This record gives sequence, C-alpha cells and structure tokens, in this order.
Amino acid sequence: MSSEGIAVQTEAPTRGGRRGRRATDVPALVERARTGDARAVARLISLVEDASPALREVAAALAPHTGSAQVIGLTGSPGVGKSTTTTALVRALRARDLRVGVLAVDPSSPFSGGALLGDRVRMQDHAGDGGVFIRSMASRGHLGGLSWATPQALRVLDAAGCDVVLIETVGVGQSELEIASLADTTLVLVAPGMGDGIQAAKAGILEVADLFVVNKADRDGADQTVRDLRYMQSLGGRHSEPGHWRPPILKTVASRDTDNGIDEVLDRIEQHRQWLESSGEGHMRRSERAAREIEAIALASLRERMGDVHGSAALGALADRVVAGESDPYRAADELLAQL
Amino acid sequence: MSSEGIAVQTEAPTRGGRRGRRATDVPALVERARTGDARAVARLISLVEDASPALREVAAALAPHTGSAQVIGLTGSPGVGKSTTTTALVRALRARDLRVGVLAVDPSSPFSGGALLGDRVRMQDHAGDGGVFIRSMASRGHLGGLSWATPQALRVLDAAGCDVVLIETVGVGQSELEIASLADTTLVLVAPGMGDGIQAAKAGILEVADLFVVNKADRDGADQTVRDLRYMQSLGGRHSEPGHWRPPILKTVASRDTDNGIDEVLDRIEQHRQWLESSGEGHMRRSERAAREIEAIALASLRERMGDVHGSAALGALADRVVAGESDPYRAADELLAQL
Repeated sequence: MSSEGIAVQTEAPTRGGRRGRRATDVPALVERARTGDARAVARLISLVEDASPALREVAAALAPHTGSAQVIGLTGSPGVGKSTTTTALVRALRARDLRVGVLAVDPSSPFSGGALLGDRVRMQDHAGDGGVFIRSMASRGHLGGLSWATPQALRVLDAAGCDVVLIETVGVGQSELEIASLADTTLVLVAPGMGDGIQAAKAGILEVADLFVVNKADRDGADQTVRDLRYMQSLGGRHSEPGHWRPPILKTVASRDTDNGIDEVLDRIEQHRQWLESSGEGHMRRSERAAREIEAIALASLRERMGDVHGSAALGALADRVVAGESDPYRAADELLAQL
Repeated sequence: MSSEGIAVQTEAPTRGGRRGRRATDVPALVERARTGDARAVARLISLVEDASPALREVAAALAPHTGSAQVIGLTGSPGVGKSTTTTALVRALRARDLRVGVLAVDPSSPFSGGALLGDRVRMQDHAGDGGVFIRSMASRGHLGGLSWATPQALRVLDAAGCDVVLIETVGVGQSELEIASLADTTLVLVAPGMGDGIQAAKAGILEVADLFVVNKADRDGADQTVRDLRYMQSLGGRHSEPGHWRPPILKTVASRDTDNGIDEVLDRIEQHRQWLESSGEGHMRRSERAAREIEAIALASLRERMGDVHGSAALGALADRVVAGESDPYRAADELLAQL
C-alpha cells in the first residue's frame, strides 16, 4: 500500500494558531473539497474546529451542498470494540462503493494526540483510499461532551460528497445522548458480560438506540445479553408504539480478521433509513438538530456580546449605581441589555 | 432563655410554592424588615430564594437601604471548626453591640434540611436575640456553587440594618472563591495537621484570603501550620506588592466554651475594613461584585428569552431552511436573534 495521496486526515486542531496568517479562499476550498480533495476537507474541518474568522463564510459556502449524507452514530462503553466495528463498517461500506467519512470524537481527551495515533494505526487499511475521510476531533466546548464543532465538521464531510458519515464516540457521560442527537441512525454497541444492557437502561441509552449491536458475539454470554436487551425493550418506551421503529438487536464479531454480522448491520441501517424517510421521522430529526444548533449558536453569540460589555465603562457605571443604592441589579441588567 | 420572639430564621426554601397565593406588600415588608422584624426579614429572603415574581420589586425596594453592611466570608475544609468560629464571632460582635446577619450556605446539599437543624442547635445561644438574623440557604443555581440568591439575601440583611453579615460556606469546589467574590473580607480557616495550607495553595485560596485563621490552635502542629502558611505567602502573589494588604495569620481556639483569639480576629477584620476604605480597594470590590451580578442577571434573562423561542414556529422555519441547505446555522442564528 502506498503512503502517497494519503487520505487519513489527522491534523491536530490548533487554537486559532493559523488565524490571519494567510487569507483563506473559502469558495475555492469548498470547490476542491467537493471534488474529494482530502487536503481541502482537512483544512475546512480545521477552520471550523479553530472557530476561525472564516467560520461563517465556510458555513454559508457549505450549506447548498449539504443534506445528502446519512449520519450514523456509534457509541458504547470502552472495550466493546467500537474501533474495530467502525473499521469493519468502513470496509463494508467501501465494498458497496459508498464514500465514507469518519469523525472519531474522544470526549475524554481535550487534546486527542493519543487518539490520533490510534486512528493512524487502526485505520491504516484505508490509508490511500480516496473514498474515505477520517478525522479525529478533540472534545471541547461543552464539559465532557462533544465539540460544538462536530456538527460543522459533519457538514464539511457531507458537502465533500460522503454518502455516509460515521461518528464514533466513547460512551461516557452525556456524549452518547449527544451523538444520538446528531445522527440519523444511532448504533449502541454492547459486549457480552459487561452488564452493558443494564447500564444502557440506566443511562437512557435504550431510548436513543436505533440499533443494538452485541459485538464479540462469539463470547460466552452473548445470547444472555441479547435476551437482557430484548427484555428491557419489552418494558416499553416510545419504540413500543405502533408504527414506530423497533430497534433490532444484532450480533457481530468484528475484529482485525472477521466482519461477521457487519453486512446485516448495514442492511438494517438501510432499513432504518427507509423508515426514517417514509415515516417523516428523518426530516423531523434533522429539523430538530438544526434548531438546537441554531439556538446554541445564538446563545454563544449573546454570550460573546456580554463578553464585550464585561469590564466596559457602561457596566462599570451601572455597577457603581447599584453600589450607591441608586439602582438595583435587575434594573441595571435591563439597562445593560437595552444597550446590547 | 425565652423562645418567644425567636430570631433564628430557618424557614426551608420552597420552589415557588407560595407563588400567587396572596399578594405580597413588598414596601410594607421592607419597612418592617428595616425596623428589625425578623419575620419580615425571613419572608423577604424567602421571596428572593423562591425567585418570586416579586423579586424585582423586592430588589428595587431594598436598593436605597443597602450598602452599609460589612460582609465577612468564612470558608475552610470540613472539620476546621467553621460553625464554632462563626458562633464565637457572632458572640464577640454582639458584645460590641453590632447587629449581625449570618448566611450559612451549604453547597453540598440541595435541600439543606440537615444544615437547618444543625444551625438551630449550634446557634441556640442567639435564639431570642433580636440583634442576630440567621439563615441557612440551600445551594442552587450553579453546579455545586453558591445560590444565585445569595447576593440578594445579603441585600435583605443589609437593608435590615445588620452592621456585619457573615457568610459561611463549606470549602468545597469553587464555593470558597465565590464567597470571596461576595465578601469584603474573606477569612480562610485552617486546622493543624490537615495539610490545609498546601490544599489552600493548590486551590488558589491564598489569593483570596484576607485573613488566615488557624483554628484549634491548642493542637499539635499549629505552629507548623502557621509556618507553612507564612512560607507560602512569602512565595509571592498580589499580597507581596507594596501598599497591599498582607493577610495576617492568626491562631484561635473556638469551641463551645472558649473564644480564644476571636477578639483579635475582629480587630484585624476592622483593620482590613479601614484598609479597604483608605486604599479604594473596598469600593472596587463592591463595584466588581455588582458588575458580576448585573452580568449574571442579564445573561439569565437572555437565556429565558431563548427559552421562549425554543420549539417556536419561527425557530422551526429557520431550522427547515438549514436542513434544506437554503441557509446555514450561523445566518439562522442571526435571524433568530434579530427576532428576539
């Protein structure tokens, strides 16, 4: 395998380090990304990750070219085999001649140097394959959650012509719920004997899973894990409503050498996609996702404006009036907002 | 000691439970509070704690009567003797014929039922003393931090004519830094042999302490603890600048029976108050405190307005345009904000 034209994009994020060093020709970058130019894709993701001044221009330029990629979320506790499953899915999707993007989000690490290296190793099968874009993203923005840049990075891969984008995250804290809010189809991976079924129920994962994958199904206890999940499904939730999607429980053995069950997973994902379309749920999810994103950006923008007044003369004058008993903090806050 | 006219105010906070049950005559309440009516004081604090609709009216009515109380923060790890020290300070302040308010904030408990009981017991010396107002506040609002209502409760006690308000908090997480931001003078309590000096240095406490109190100074290791603190002070920080206040390190033995050293603590607090006034630092602290409070209220108010658009038709329409690729989330956020 040649290392030339390598498509594995693992450029580490920098905090605005590139800002202003050179003007960014965003339209040209987007054009190049649309032709599958891996460097352009990587550069665009860096721009959104860095919250570059060009971010708004990038978002505007991407918009007309987005909306076609199918977003698949993968989550599960450490050790269930997310990485090998992702690799197997990429292999199977490539065999179906689909272009694939992978966003690996590691919320446990603010600077995912380790994750980057890990990706390089485990994804080396696809190095040099122009039909695969792989990107590790550091988690920042929220506490322990997905990066705020994740939806923008998704849009870059979407505009770059990826038919499918896989987002993989460690199932820690809220990240699995967040990933479900970004994905069209959410896969929850569990492994036999890890008590994951119970933990999933506790964490609210049952509600967000569109597909359960019992990985390492050649191990003892796989059938018991399937039964556990089925039992918990039987206890209700929205999936038990008529006409609703009932998440299938599939068994896989994904490792470096075997892809057992992976094709069925893809078939079921395709079924889910069709259900999303025919039921209208797909549009609803995308619309909700966009609404949440708009709200988050609006709130961040308000915070920024508040930041501008922080320490300003206007705020200082209002504060002095409160100290002097000539005003109260609520009236002062109203006056501050009126000035924004 | 009579239990009539009891001044210990330990009414548990309710979450808006009283809302709308009866109209609140805020000006009358404030007038009664100003004459030292303990029930009126308690009711006003409940109104601000409940975020009652009358909150703004209360804040406006209090404003002209605030600004004279000296706010003293007490913090330290569990077990250093904060409660007994607070009691001893109240006793000593009363002996100087000062009116005292106590706000006991327990950030570790969202509903401080336990703390309320504890207060009743340990403060029973002052039950029936009309010159002392004691209030336990639950911590809510921030994660693990002081209640957002704390500054408002401070204003109530200030308007009620308290010469001194003591705020006591368990030294957990960020709360000691927050208390320092509310207080004119911050006392950091440590006890011998607890390694508190080192922990204080780690947590940034050295920077916020205006006075160190090594409590339980009759125990082994007290002198060593004083030396540790002195050594860490010598390492620098803003206190080493010329003309700046250098936090004294005092030793106390505060218990049910003894108040050793407490009078010197009060003397040093008075010295600090004089320094605050002569240096201008006091006004600066109060002004900064008010500015932070105004900003926090303004941001909360913006969040509320965002909440109004959540799920609204306007947001839904913007989201649909983003999904369709006709807009991007940044432009949509601008449009949303323009509608606020």
